[in-house]
Amino acid sequence: MSDAKCQSDDIEPSAKKIKKDEQNGNPVTELHVHLKDFIPTKIINNNTNGKTVCVLGSFKDKSGVAVVLLEKKAFSGDQLNDSGYFSDATELRTLFQNDIYGNFECYPKPEINGVKTSIIYPATEKHIVKFSQQVKHVILETPECYDKLTLPFLQKEQFSLQWVHNILDGKSEQDRVVHDNKCEKEGFVLLPDFKWDGKTKETLYLLAIVRPRNIKSLRDLNETHLPLLKRVRNEGKKAIVDKYNVPGSQLRVYLHYQPSFYHLHIHFTYLLHEAPGIYAEKAHLLDTVIDNIEMMSDYYKKATLPFTIREMDNLFKVYETNGHVNKVISDIDK
Amino acid sequence: MSDAKCQSDDIEPSAKKIKKDEQNGNPVTELHVHLKDFIPTKIINNNTNGKTVCVLGSFKDKSGVAVVLLEKKAFSGDQLNDSGYFSDATELRTLFQNDIYGNFECYPKPEINGVKTSIIYPATEKHIVKFSQQVKHVILETPECYDKLTLPFLQKEQFSLQWVHNILDGKSEQDRVVHDNKCEKEGFVLLPDFKWDGKTKETLYLLAIVRPRNIKSLRDLNETHLPLLKRVRNEGKKAIVDKYNVPGSQLRVYLHYQPSFYHLHIHFTYLLHEAPGIYAEKAHLLDTVIDNIEMMSDYYKKATLPFTIREMDNLFKVYETNGHVNKVISDIDK
Repeated sequence: MSDAKCQSDDIEPSAKKIKKDEQNGNPVTELHVHLKDFIPTKIINNNTNGKTVCVLGSFKDKSGVAVVLLEKKAFSGDQLNDSGYFSDATELRTLFQNDIYGNFECYPKPEINGVKTSIIYPATEKHIVKFSQQVKHVILETPECYDKLTLPFLQKEQFSLQWVHNILDGKSEQDRVVHDNKCEKEGFVLLPDFKWDGKTKETLYLLAIVRPRNIKSLRDLNETHLPLLKRVRNEGKKAIVDKYNVPGSQLRVYLHYQPSFYHLHIHFTYLLHEAPGIYAEKAHLLDTVIDNIEMMSDYYKKATLPFTIREMDNLFKVYETNGHVNKVISDIDK
Repeated sequence: MSDAKCQSDDIEPSAKKIKKDEQNGNPVTELHVHLKDFIPTKIINNNTNGKTVCVLGSFKDKSGVAVVLLEKKAFSGDQLNDSGYFSDATELRTLFQNDIYGNFECYPKPEINGVKTSIIYPATEKHIVKFSQQVKHVILETPECYDKLTLPFLQKEQFSLQWVHNILDGKSEQDRVVHDNKCEKEGFVLLPDFKWDGKTKETLYLLAIVRPRNIKSLRDLNETHLPLLKRVRNEGKKAIVDKYNVPGSQLRVYLHYQPSFYHLHIHFTYLLHEAPGIYAEKAHLLDTVIDNIEMMSDYYKKATLPFTIREMDNLFKVYETNGHVNKVISDIDK
């Protein structure tokens, strides 16, 4: 609790304000930054396919490092009309033309061409690692590997869950909550994912955070969790069709393994949206998880679960030291 | 050279001009269009991951239809400095803040935030089909659904497997074979996938086609196939590291469900390559398949397997007629 606050309390007093949360009197920190004060030092990831970039740097006259993520936004249907892209305000510059094909560059009015910007400040070494591009490996985690390597590691090294508790306790992001089932055993909070703008249907991405606080991940799931999992699936789908008009059959509902934080959460994305982390080596469909447990209640206690890991991740070192994977120097890596 | 200048110099509303190509005297048509004259009728594709969109429509006072493709551009290093994104000219609007994390939208100056624009005019029906996306659904295939709906359908409608038999019989593509184990019960042929150029390591994609001819898909697999599956995994990985220098831990090895043809085959792709069909709703890691069967020999006979389907696919109609899924009219589709 105080750790998380501490991290952000180190910023200059002038750079932020501290206000009282009206419900509980706890201080809520707010960071006031300008992009013009950002001094970039290194591009740590540039995804030219997804049009995202991650820049490491610092803020002028401030200590500590910051990570700035920029992401070009997907097109939204309501911009593709005569007051949006196809308006007088859009400039068009010709690159070339050949027969019926023409290539141009257009400059729409800025307000419909915003860039999603996330700032993490102050960022820790772990944040930097998380957002950096790296050589990846698949590791097969047997139940023994989980007990001996993964579990001790994550108990020692995991990120603070303060932000999760803030949401569950009603201290943060309450205006963003889409659905809230307050049952402590089988309830959950559904809200837009950090990566989603909360509006564009084509990139729909919500997160269900379960209320029980003792379920770290997929690995912990068994038949006692079936009512919770089914509630997340059914109520989550219903809330999404009600609010966003996307039916359940057009949703991808899944869990990550390994997850980025060890408090059970379930992802809901629009099926046509190629969100990050939806690949077979990382995403487990909730329907399959439920089916596996129904067929075999201790499935996730017995299964060998593959997961991917980057060479710079600390968990990689654990598995490397124990002879489960080797670093490579490939051409791709040179 | 002068052509290119000409084109960008006069983008006038005045329809198009026809001039003579200086080299061969053939007429060269040049289209003069303004995006403000474009009347959109339908978004036929919206790739939210790649941030591209394809819009069908027409031009004011002109006959025929046009296809307009818009694509957000990747970030370029030379924009990520204090005269680009991190300059006074960039506006920043706060979406929310929680602890050390903040989400914003930024509006950079238009000239560094251009949108790649392609226009095809007049467009033919073939252009429209080529650029169209289809509505997709997830269907949960229980063993009963498989027996009653999927199996009869695929027995009736599947593509010819002649090309597969040609490869196995040594009649086709023999110069492309990377590895060949001729055992009729546990052997397979490994060769570059049709989509791969066979060279670029970053997009590495090979296919293992098993020699037994009676295994249609994942659904047919049981403990009698474990030696075959393990041989594909182990020999396939070895052949790939020997020939392409990509170690097994950097490969994604998986089966599709539904597959595009019903003769068992296994995909090998480079882990960092975002190949099509690697999503959790379609791809099943071979390691997980082997593990599932080892835990429960009739896993694939009992499991409910999700798969995705497009509304235009014939199998969709089978499931729709039987009440398992409904067509949707979403905003995206209007």
